[in-house]
Amino acid sequence: MLYLYTASDAERWSDAFRLQLPDLDVVAWPAPVDAAQVRYIVTWNPPEGFFDGFPKLEAVFAQGAGIDKLLARPDLAPNVRVVRLTDAGMSAQMVEYALFGVLRFQRDFDVYATQQANSTWEPQPPRLAEATRVSVLGLGAIGAAVASTLAGLGYRVSGWSRSPRELPGVRCVYGPTALDALLADTDILVSVLPSTPDTRGLLDRERLALLPDGAALINAGRGDLIDLSALVELLDAGHLRGAQLDVFPAEPLGTDDPLWRHPKLLVTPHIAAATLIEPSVKQMADGIRLLQVGGEPAGLVERRHAY
Amino acid sequence: MLYLYTASDAERWSDAFRLQLPDLDVVAWPAPVDAAQVRYIVTWNPPEGFFDGFPKLEAVFAQGAGIDKLLARPDLAPNVRVVRLTDAGMSAQMVEYALFGVLRFQRDFDVYATQQANSTWEPQPPRLAEATRVSVLGLGAIGAAVASTLAGLGYRVSGWSRSPRELPGVRCVYGPTALDALLADTDILVSVLPSTPDTRGLLDRERLALLPDGAALINAGRGDLIDLSALVELLDAGHLRGAQLDVFPAEPLGTDDPLWRHPKLLVTPHIAAATLIEPSVKQMADGIRLLQVGGEPAGLVERRHAY
Ligand SMILES: NC(=O)c1ccc[n+]([C@@H]2O[C@H](COP(=O)([O-])OP(=O)(O)OC[C@H]3O[C@@H](n4cnc5c(N)ncnc54)[C@H](OP(=O)(O)O)[C@@H]3O)[C@@H](O)[C@H]2O)c1
Ligand SMILES: NC(=O)c1ccc[n+]([C@@H]2O[C@H](COP(=O)([O-])OP(=O)(O)OC[C@H]3O[C@@H](n4cnc5c(N)ncnc54)[C@H](OP(=O)(O)O)[C@@H]3O)[C@@H](O)[C@H]2O)c1
Repeated sequence: MLYLYTASDAERWSDAFRLQLPDLDVVAWPAPVDAAQVRYIVTWNPPEGFFDGFPKLEAVFAQGAGIDKLLARPDLAPNVRVVRLTDAGMSAQMVEYALFGVLRFQRDFDVYATQQANSTWEPQPPRLAEATRVSVLGLGAIGAAVASTLAGLGYRVSGWSRSPRELPGVRCVYGPTALDALLADTDILVSVLPSTPDTRGLLDRERLALLPDGAALINAGRGDLIDLSALVELLDAGHLRGAQLDVFPAEPLGTDDPLWRHPKLLVTPHIAAATLIEPSVKQMADGIRLLQVGGEPAGLVERRHAY
Repeated sequence: MLYLYTASDAERWSDAFRLQLPDLDVVAWPAPVDAAQVRYIVTWNPPEGFFDGFPKLEAVFAQGAGIDKLLARPDLAPNVRVVRLTDAGMSAQMVEYALFGVLRFQRDFDVYATQQANSTWEPQPPRLAEATRVSVLGLGAIGAAVASTLAGLGYRVSGWSRSPRELPGVRCVYGPTALDALLADTDILVSVLPSTPDTRGLLDRERLALLPDGAALINAGRGDLIDLSALVELLDAGHLRGAQLDVFPAEPLGTDDPLWRHPKLLVTPHIAAATLIEPSVKQMADGIRLLQVGGEPAGLVERRHAY
């Protein structure tokens, strides 16, 4: 039995699962469920204690790519497998989100917005893509798509991951020691890293300060990757040019949060890459079929790496 | 002899020409020139009467792609050939400019800017590229690159030209009668048309009103293609969502112009695609070599079509 606990669109999710897995029982919250029968749970951020009392639970399928919140839960037993979405229509959206941010800085749309507010007509010297160094942190399903697309558009793209990766047109480096030199060689930093014990607080004051004068930053990975007060200080000091932030340590961002009003910050409400029901259900159904025959689904989380 | 009359960077232009055409005499304003010897002029927008008195003038090379201003001049004899830039590094820049505008509307960055100003965290429903109809007016050196790149990124792209064109992944239509149906089938309109007797005022009140509710517009062709007061009315009435304008009937836009302050307009100071000295000189030098042996340079303007 599959138990679906979703914040919205329960009917569309259930219908999609019934289409993909006609032989599986699918129960969607708030319908009553026989917890003893549940082998798979599909969810994102259920209430505390939710995972208690499913004796046959084999796997939890996350309705997203980042599973930091799920892994941190005490009610989720370590033997239960966690499966995350991998791409499922999110990569293309993230490419768009990152590309908008890169174009905004490269092509001075931030400067022109200020000029427009002052009725000032003042063309800036052109800066070509090939002269713009973009560094992508995270080369997974999403980061690889971002890096490759930017390289295809002519940017000078580098990418950073934990283990060695190869991507045509992208200078790939990996591991903690490669990061500092990369930051110093970056005009626009794009982070699509997961939140793990190794990445939390990664972009601290010291590392952010390694970015060259006038560099800009886009974060659509997780909010806890960056020391936000250090970021704001570097923006205020004029060292960094601007930042586009989609994710925050606590979401939604509180109405009183000064980040909303910082003139050098572009804030979006965690919309960089939305979960799309149909491709997600298709991927989860493939995963369930594989689990049923003892296989390993794509997106099976490696607990020791926490992503 | 080649006579160079350029608003800026005279030295870089001259040096590049001397490198490309070591056997040709190159004189750059304000140095004195023997007008009787001048066969080629390189310029953009010289003062009135400038072209009088060059008896051997064969060709004028424009430092840009749009030659509407040059063709309108009474001092430029009709037998003098006009050669414009074709691509020369401008297409890639225009792709970026158009892409920024398309992403801004498709991905609701205009809405999120308003929300940020109000400290409002409110994700909008995702809209995918494949569900976004982009229509590109003009499929020349620049428009074809814009349309193809957008199609490659997954948008539903149509393109419009004067004569039939074919572009992989782009639904191409042509001629005056195809335009109205195209406009009615457009979420985001991108104009990169030249200004000619046939295109001036093309997007008048009636045609702009054919765009569906909530459609948006990007104009980086020429300012006189669009009836700006009709555009503003349709924005104010809530029929159109927004517009990104790089070109205007008179440039620079006056400090008092209300367009600067319209909340649904993004105004940029004619920067969509800047002329790049090295690739431009390379293309002009190739053109001069062809003219010298009786050939036809790329970008030779067809006077009867006015582009
Ligand atoms: N804002 C949004 O709307 C949104 C939407 C979807 C996803 N996201 C975020 O994007 C993240 C990435 O998603 P994905 O599907 O691309 O994940 P993924 O396929 O697991 O890729 C993660 C990438 O990060 C790298 N990485 C992990 N730990 C690292 C470390 N300590 N040092 C260096 N590199 C490290 C990995 O390196 P290896 O290649 O060596 O494994 C991999 O390249 C998600 O975890 C989520 O936080 C945000
Ligand atoms: N904002 C900026 O920074 C900037 C920079 C560079 C250029 N521009 C503008 O961009 C324009 C286009 O440049 P380009 O190099 O692509 O020019 P191009 O190669 O001459 O292409 C012009 C395109 O417009 C089409 N066209 C012309 N008249 C038409 C009509 N009456 N009906 C339908 N289509 C028509 C042509 O159709 P056919 O294919 O059938 O010939 C062609 O596809 C320039 O003229 C200039 O105004 C602006």
